[in-house]
Amino acid sequence: MRADVAAGQSFTDEVVAASSGTFDRWLLGRIRRTLETAPIRFRLWDGYELSPPTDPPIATIEIKNRRALVGWARDPELNFGEAYMFGAVEVHGDLEGMLEAVYHAFGPSKRRGWWQRHMAHTVEASRQNVHHHYDLGNDFYKLWLDEQLLYTCAYFPTPDATLEAAQIAKMDLVCRKIRLRPGERVVEAGCGWGALALHMARHYGARVQAFNLSTNQIAYARERAAREGLADRVEFVEDDYRNVSGTFDAFVSVGMLEHVGLANYGDLGRVIDRTMGADGRGLLHFIGRNKPEPLNAWIVRRIFPGAYPPTLREVCDGVLEPQALSVLDVENLRLHYAKTIEHWRHRFDASAESVREMADEQFERAWRLYLAGSQAAFATGSMQLFQIVFARGGTNNIPWTRVEGLTG
Amino acid sequence: MRADVAAGQSFTDEVVAASSGTFDRWLLGRIRRTLETAPIRFRLWDGYELSPPTDPPIATIEIKNRRALVGWARDPELNFGEAYMFGAVEVHGDLEGMLEAVYHAFGPSKRRGWWQRHMAHTVEASRQNVHHHYDLGNDFYKLWLDEQLLYTCAYFPTPDATLEAAQIAKMDLVCRKIRLRPGERVVEAGCGWGALALHMARHYGARVQAFNLSTNQIAYARERAAREGLADRVEFVEDDYRNVSGTFDAFVSVGMLEHVGLANYGDLGRVIDRTMGADGRGLLHFIGRNKPEPLNAWIVRRIFPGAYPPTLREVCDGVLEPQALSVLDVENLRLHYAKTIEHWRHRFDASAESVREMADEQFERAWRLYLAGSQAAFATGSMQLFQIVFARGGTNNIPWTRVEGLTG
Repeated sequence: MRADVAAGQSFTDEVVAASSGTFDRWLLGRIRRTLETAPIRFRLWDGYELSPPTDPPIATIEIKNRRALVGWARDPELNFGEAYMFGAVEVHGDLEGMLEAVYHAFGPSKRRGWWQRHMAHTVEASRQNVHHHYDLGNDFYKLWLDEQLLYTCAYFPTPDATLEAAQIAKMDLVCRKIRLRPGERVVEAGCGWGALALHMARHYGARVQAFNLSTNQIAYARERAAREGLADRVEFVEDDYRNVSGTFDAFVSVGMLEHVGLANYGDLGRVIDRTMGADGRGLLHFIGRNKPEPLNAWIVRRIFPGAYPPTLREVCDGVLEPQALSVLDVENLRLHYAKTIEHWRHRFDASAESVREMADEQFERAWRLYLAGSQAAFATGSMQLFQIVFARGGTNNIPWTRVEGLTG
Repeated sequence: MRADVAAGQSFTDEVVAASSGTFDRWLLGRIRRTLETAPIRFRLWDGYELSPPTDPPIATIEIKNRRALVGWARDPELNFGEAYMFGAVEVHGDLEGMLEAVYHAFGPSKRRGWWQRHMAHTVEASRQNVHHHYDLGNDFYKLWLDEQLLYTCAYFPTPDATLEAAQIAKMDLVCRKIRLRPGERVVEAGCGWGALALHMARHYGARVQAFNLSTNQIAYARERAAREGLADRVEFVEDDYRNVSGTFDAFVSVGMLEHVGLANYGDLGRVIDRTMGADGRGLLHFIGRNKPEPLNAWIVRRIFPGAYPPTLREVCDGVLEPQALSVLDVENLRLHYAKTIEHWRHRFDASAESVREMADEQFERAWRLYLAGSQAAFATGSMQLFQIVFARGGTNNIPWTRVEGLTG
């Protein structure tokens, strides 16, 4: 068993104390104070409760043993997730709503301080966790993503659109923003299961070279391209996007920048500069922040090792400005990501049994928490979703107004 | 006479040499090489010419004396303007087209090096020139601005819209982007002659407090508000915007940020944070860059002391990120500014006689060059025009898509 799995597992080892003592209750009071006005009820293993002073509680957080209580007090960012995942903490009631209340209670400035304290730890954790604990592959994602397996923010023309329609609308939005024309060549950096590349070829007549490091996803995408008769127009390349050669009419990357790492932004900018033609267009779609903060340490440990959502400033600073690329358009779609994840969660919850069968209960609980926490982060404005459209500074082959193409 | 006026004046003092010598012609060859492939013909005072190698020339630049020639070679950025202004350089042909060719010849990266060499000088010049040499007031601007005296980039729904219609469309675009509703309170930082503030009150039912340091412009704006029966809804304040108090539904600033100076961006951010309500919206409209460069030293000396067009990164870094403000939308309208200035130039050229009567020939030549150079800068992508819409990170009172309000 890996050391960090064991660390989390240890939350379940403890023999439960018969009843909570003065120290336990004092510690719970401290924890409650860090969450200020969040309408949450806390319950210890022996039934001792702290209720919110005024509002009725959104949810009750049950802390099942002393180790989970102490772990939370010591490092709430990491250990709430660990204890939840291993069942030493249970949330009775609305998990996502409770997490929204936590985000609201901290607010942007306070949350920042709380995170920064754990920055060093976060970096360490991400080094220790270069690979996923669980790689269940396509079958897992098929349970809760849309039918084309897009694992990025959708675009809902209206909030009641279906997830399938919204993912298609997102792909069309991207194609319109880069003003894709028949016969044009596109390079896609980080193509997932290939839906966008295939959409560009089928509906816009583009020729696409799409890069991805995942053998699994590339195999799936190639098989789909062959089945749909698009293999002559879409080349799926199992390689780092930095090894792309040639020039293209458009450079597109949807949901990869979060995984690139600040230290590699200069490389990304140079690849864009090298591959984008004189009248080329570029689009970066990524999870971002209003202010620099590391990603939650628990998510980095359990879900996305090495992930970092940058601010607009960091992307301009690292990727675009060194190449004098010209930002034409930025759109923040964070509420669309909250809505996307709401759909994913409903499908995930409906498939919880299957997930537990594929993996185990810890895995299912970890992903349940991760999805609820991510929805809460986008819904409360802790995380952003930016689409940036850019071109070279010298080209006038740019839209006159956003009425031509940039609207939904 | 001020020292720097005298410095420019000196270009006209010299007794013209009877004929150009080997040194003069060698120097002209050097100058021509710095402009590489720009299709420009050069002519010295005695008729000696260097023609472009291939293309027919867009224009002929006549250098009328040795001092102008040497001055150009020593510090082209400053002294081309100085010599042109004082008539020691004449441009025969298309002034604006020639300046576009110069921008193209330098290209983004080279131009950068050329400017940076003069950075120290630029800062010095801006310190020496805190005030305009010429302050002709409203009558001068009435000659060539639109009828409402908007001295900022217009928004042309189609390129053939009139300037008057495009300035109204720009004001509507701003009001739509901040989703202005009847009864809402707006603070405007830097209101010029008051057109936008009055437009917001008249057409959107807003209550506006508009700040400006210019006695002249404030008097004009107040008089107009009184005449149009809007004085109860628009308060024009002759004061620094930093002295604003109270909270507002929207913070708007159109064409002021270029004059704020990087060192004061933190102050601006704090003012926004202090005055913007929990669901408040903000809009910054400003001239920007793709990469940091000081403004042309001659423009800083003669037209806009202290002006600096920032990059998006610099605005995020200095104004928005420290307050954790959330960027919702960015639009780059640089081609609209090229079109706006094209209109201004046509009106200016048609009023050249009046300008010379109001001031003198040097002033008229300086503004003619400045307008042509500015149009060329926006047309070639050397300068950008950004509109940034932002809100607090925590509010969900933001548009679902840009179809509601953010389009033209």
